[in-house]
Amino acid sequence: MSTQTSSQGTVPQRLARTRELMKREGIHALLVPSADPHLSEYLPAYWQGRQWLSGFHGSVGTLIVTAQFAGVWADSRYWEQATKELGGSGIELVKLQPGQPGPLEWLAEQTPQGGVVAVDGAVMALASARTLGEKLQARGARLRTDTDLLQQVWEDRPVLPNQPVYEHLPPQATVSRGEKLAQLREELKNRGADWHFIATLDDIAWLFNLRGADVSFNPVFVSFALVSQQQATLFVALDKVNAELVQILKRDGVTLRDYAEIAAALAAVPAGSSLLVDPARVTSGLLDNLGAEVKLVEGLNPTTLAKSRKSLDDAVHIRQAMEQDGAALCEFFAWLETALGRERVTELTIDEKLTAARARRPDYVSLSFNTIAAFNANGAMPHYHATEQEHAVIEGDGLLLIDSGGQYLGGTTDITRMVPVGTPSAEQKADCTRVLKGVIALSRARFPRGILSPLLDAIARAPIWADNVNYGHGTGHGVGYFLNVHEGPQVIAYQAVAAPQTAMQPGMITSIEPGTYRPGRWGVRIENLAMNREAGESEFGEFLRFETLTLCPIDTRCLEPALLTQEERDWFNGYHAEVRERLSPLLGGAALEWLNTRTAAI
Amino acid sequence: MSTQTSSQGTVPQRLARTRELMKREGIHALLVPSADPHLSEYLPAYWQGRQWLSGFHGSVGTLIVTAQFAGVWADSRYWEQATKELGGSGIELVKLQPGQPGPLEWLAEQTPQGGVVAVDGAVMALASARTLGEKLQARGARLRTDTDLLQQVWEDRPVLPNQPVYEHLPPQATVSRGEKLAQLREELKNRGADWHFIATLDDIAWLFNLRGADVSFNPVFVSFALVSQQQATLFVALDKVNAELVQILKRDGVTLRDYAEIAAALAAVPAGSSLLVDPARVTSGLLDNLGAEVKLVEGLNPTTLAKSRKSLDDAVHIRQAMEQDGAALCEFFAWLETALGRERVTELTIDEKLTAARARRPDYVSLSFNTIAAFNANGAMPHYHATEQEHAVIEGDGLLLIDSGGQYLGGTTDITRMVPVGTPSAEQKADCTRVLKGVIALSRARFPRGILSPLLDAIARAPIWADNVNYGHGTGHGVGYFLNVHEGPQVIAYQAVAAPQTAMQPGMITSIEPGTYRPGRWGVRIENLAMNREAGESEFGEFLRFETLTLCPIDTRCLEPALLTQEERDWFNGYHAEVRERLSPLLGGAALEWLNTRTAAI
Repeated sequence: MSTQTSSQGTVPQRLARTRELMKREGIHALLVPSADPHLSEYLPAYWQGRQWLSGFHGSVGTLIVTAQFAGVWADSRYWEQATKELGGSGIELVKLQPGQPGPLEWLAEQTPQGGVVAVDGAVMALASARTLGEKLQARGARLRTDTDLLQQVWEDRPVLPNQPVYEHLPPQATVSRGEKLAQLREELKNRGADWHFIATLDDIAWLFNLRGADVSFNPVFVSFALVSQQQATLFVALDKVNAELVQILKRDGVTLRDYAEIAAALAAVPAGSSLLVDPARVTSGLLDNLGAEVKLVEGLNPTTLAKSRKSLDDAVHIRQAMEQDGAALCEFFAWLETALGRERVTELTIDEKLTAARARRPDYVSLSFNTIAAFNANGAMPHYHATEQEHAVIEGDGLLLIDSGGQYLGGTTDITRMVPVGTPSAEQKADCTRVLKGVIALSRARFPRGILSPLLDAIARAPIWADNVNYGHGTGHGVGYFLNVHEGPQVIAYQAVAAPQTAMQPGMITSIEPGTYRPGRWGVRIENLAMNREAGESEFGEFLRFETLTLCPIDTRCLEPALLTQEERDWFNGYHAEVRERLSPLLGGAALEWLNTRTAAI
Repeated sequence: MSTQTSSQGTVPQRLARTRELMKREGIHALLVPSADPHLSEYLPAYWQGRQWLSGFHGSVGTLIVTAQFAGVWADSRYWEQATKELGGSGIELVKLQPGQPGPLEWLAEQTPQGGVVAVDGAVMALASARTLGEKLQARGARLRTDTDLLQQVWEDRPVLPNQPVYEHLPPQATVSRGEKLAQLREELKNRGADWHFIATLDDIAWLFNLRGADVSFNPVFVSFALVSQQQATLFVALDKVNAELVQILKRDGVTLRDYAEIAAALAAVPAGSSLLVDPARVTSGLLDNLGAEVKLVEGLNPTTLAKSRKSLDDAVHIRQAMEQDGAALCEFFAWLETALGRERVTELTIDEKLTAARARRPDYVSLSFNTIAAFNANGAMPHYHATEQEHAVIEGDGLLLIDSGGQYLGGTTDITRMVPVGTPSAEQKADCTRVLKGVIALSRARFPRGILSPLLDAIARAPIWADNVNYGHGTGHGVGYFLNVHEGPQVIAYQAVAAPQTAMQPGMITSIEPGTYRPGRWGVRIENLAMNREAGESEFGEFLRFETLTLCPIDTRCLEPALLTQEERDWFNGYHAEVRERLSPLLGGAALEWLNTRTAAI
């Protein structure tokens, strides 16, 4: 691959220089995770050191280098890509599989007594650093986190992103930063913490009603925050914030300091005080700056739970964003239905046309993730993304899976729909119908407030399991409010640990997206977003229900209606009636006609 | 209560003597749990020290005595009874509630620095003793487990039970003890353990194909087992085992030693060897006998998982037992339907008549638990048991809940049915129908082999949650094979921890028993037992389904059929057709007539 030979030489040359340095420093093994100091899903290029050093460009993977060995641990999504990209580099692909030992276990087993494992502590979660450190200690080895070895060998390392920071304003920002800070300070008192350190970018963006564009798809900016009862300090590259915004923040009691000053600020947290951190959301390297007399209080960031609970005021804007998003989809689908068979349509064309339709809508900001347009066999890879080099032409018979979403000032969308191409087979229709039954079963469910969200997954899966079918991914992830399309703390997945923080609370938005994947043949997924709404209190406690937020027809030509029960049909027809009613006013011409046709009752 | 004044004086007198002894021994607090050295559900009278010392006779509760304070911690099932029984004793009732600190937390908070908490280590689970010990140590206090204080004040303490031990024989015992021991030894090798110590009575009974009658309802005998590759020793009061059985066991490689010799045997486990124990199923006091050089391997007893997986050979006998049990129930219900309104029927009469009907059936051994016959408001107490002093007469209108079960040589039964009395109200019928929908939803489910059983609970609850209704108990517990009616490791309860050992495997038998309880009004529960059966393997893995084992009509006069979907009605009619087909050959006269009437399709 071209990226393997930059001005910095080939991957083997980079590895050789790294190994020289390791030898000089007495380091037995170097660990390079896919992570940044904010433990974000999408990494700025500055922190893509694993990609640079290994030549493997998948978004998740862990590199370990020793004198004799180099290996990248990657899960099944990336095996094909990693095999290609690592070829000839001298780096092995280690296939990461559920239940098999991962890279940290490998280090714990392979490091000799007295050995030193180095990792840049600035990009290693506190919880992981502790686990690895303890395992190494038990073997008489040691974890060193005080050095970023890459810094010394990566000469043309990219700079940090530098997009402007801007305000998320009313009416879409429904709670002021002053009010959010007051609530956070109340919660710090409850937890017995004097200070709170936040490294998570979406928590920070939410707390201060600020947005940015430092990473793809997530409207966040690279920063840290340190909050006490008296102070609220935002650490960010100062040239990203204009003078006017500096004044507004100052008025609201928010002080700005340069991004690089966080280390000094942590070092200055007074001895004897207590600091709240989430051990899974801060890195050990940053906390190493703290004085020994600072007491850690560990727990979920209060902003993570607060941010997950959208208010009824937020819901007003979210519903509008969903209507605009649905209208954009109708325009796109109307075009697609006409274009198929008449002009050359590829998976890439779909991305372009769909993005253009969204971009025409008011308050549109960006996509919320890379569009997945995957035809037949490509649809069987849940994280497939078409490229210039490899993509399918949409022709013949089969199923086209389109998973896409947008960022709007009033909300974040994420929707998957199936499109029939030519004549879908009976087996394809059965797969789509079964997945739809799963969507309906969970969408109709009520459940006790506070139930741990992983426990709800079986409701969506029961109609799919009924035919000995299953899918490997979770059924639902949390979604932000003009923020990350993946956020916690809830998750609807029977594979997930049912931890207390996954409890369902009013206002949370979660995707409902069961699927079926037949490798080499096709993939099916149908996805709506749904918001937890209060459903009344009885002698048995408080209950919640889902309000389906996503508005877009589910193409009945992919379905076998005879497989639906009367109750499922009723839900389906009711959903389509609502979609028609709410999207009609936003559409005209061919798109309106398409909407009316595709929402006809079955 | 009469039990408070035995030859040993009143509860306050007993407490006073105990406190004197505590003072002499320098003990700050005495902990008396409801437990025995086998951590059984039902305790022989010898280990009912908490009942004796406190005067509270509920089956679960924990007593703590200090110089100034005495309290019994009990959950909501027992508050009424405890309030009555503790009145005037000087012992407080501490209401145990989910999420509130329990007795161990109380001790950890209240014990002063330097204080000593005493508990008889012989009846304290290793895991609990460790937790409490660590908490006390953190406070500078100490846990003492080497003394049974009660032994010194309880002069008329009952003796240990002494019922004969007998063999569980073919054809019902489908695997020989030799084969079971060989499998256990194989598993010990896999776990890297030289020895295995078992204290759990049903594990021991299962392993050796032996049964007894030392405690109510569970056909087990008080014993310990110690197994290595070379030896298998059963520790039991030797006069319980006749000479012939001694020879049979000897021939199969099983040595007998007296029950009291377990301490010496544990002390003799060779230094340097490893011993497998389940820290939740052995007590710290017994393990204190081990030498310091014995290495503990901790994990679930292999017999617990093996015992839970009934074979297809077992299933043949279980189905016969279910038919006999169903036939007994039909005879009883036919009598009840005629008797109601004609003669005086009370909750106690029901227990007598139903037990008599079961006792007439071949291979019947005993009840598998105390029959619950609970009319209207009594049914709202899930663990209600009618007594000579307090019981209802069945008259007027309403619902009668009957939860009962039997031990047969070929299986253990547990069934709950609702009986209409007079004219049940529309609300009562709605409650029964909703609960039935829950039974049907779970009974029809398929699911991936190995799924953690707590994750299935939402399938049963979804149709109940749909109307903002819920119930506090679990939906399903494991059931033994002519063994305990409650056994692990699986449990269908969203309140339970989804631990790895709860994974669903073929052959497990679990109850499916959703309910609805309206305090002061009525309670509804419908319960069948179901066995995990293999349901085929697809490209998505192996699947399981439930075979409903329990055979008995569900009275349609308690139902509102209009609330059932077509699919639910189909399942219901199919179930009733099978019940009729399989029970008819065992019945005649009024019982057969009743069966035919009550299984008519709806």
